[in-house]
Amino acid sequence: MALLDYLLGQKKKKSAGVAKDRLQILLAHERSERKSPEYLPKMREEILQVIGKYVQIDQDQLQISIDEANGYEVLELNLVLPEK
Amino acid sequence: MALLDYLLGQKKKKSAGVAKDRLQILLAHERSERKSPEYLPKMREEILQVIGKYVQIDQDQLQISIDEANGYEVLELNLVLPEK
Repeated sequence: MALLDYLLGQKKKKSAGVAKDRLQILLAHERSERKSPEYLPKMREEILQVIGKYVQIDQDQLQISIDEANGYEVLELNLVLPEK
Repeated sequence: MALLDYLLGQKKKKSAGVAKDRLQILLAHERSERKSPEYLPKMREEILQVIGKYVQIDQDQLQISIDEANGYEVLELNLVLPEK
């Protein structure tokens, strides 16, 4: 599973430190030529609101990258999960 | 950005066909030794409910894989987005 290789590669980069529960959330939107669905920004916002109910989201944990050439818009969120 | 290479690799595998808007959603939970936060299943469920408000989710689009050895639980959702 290539995706898991990517995640494990990420894991090695992190300092050992105390083992923590982490959650990586990724919303990768691959756009076609036609107009993007209008509901997408709202859906993304609502997903962040759900997450924000359970976990404090700091702006530096949220990464939005746009790759115009390949028509990708990627929202990546890396969270350290609090125990309770 | 290694993650984008992974996504682009995915893109090539797909048949050319009609360009469609696609959304790939990934929830990768990296577990530590201690007990996982109890709220996580509920949060994941609520995220799927939000998505389900906008897009029809078929079970075959939803993939959950668990890599015990590396302590990863990955929920992957690949959706073709309807226009409206």
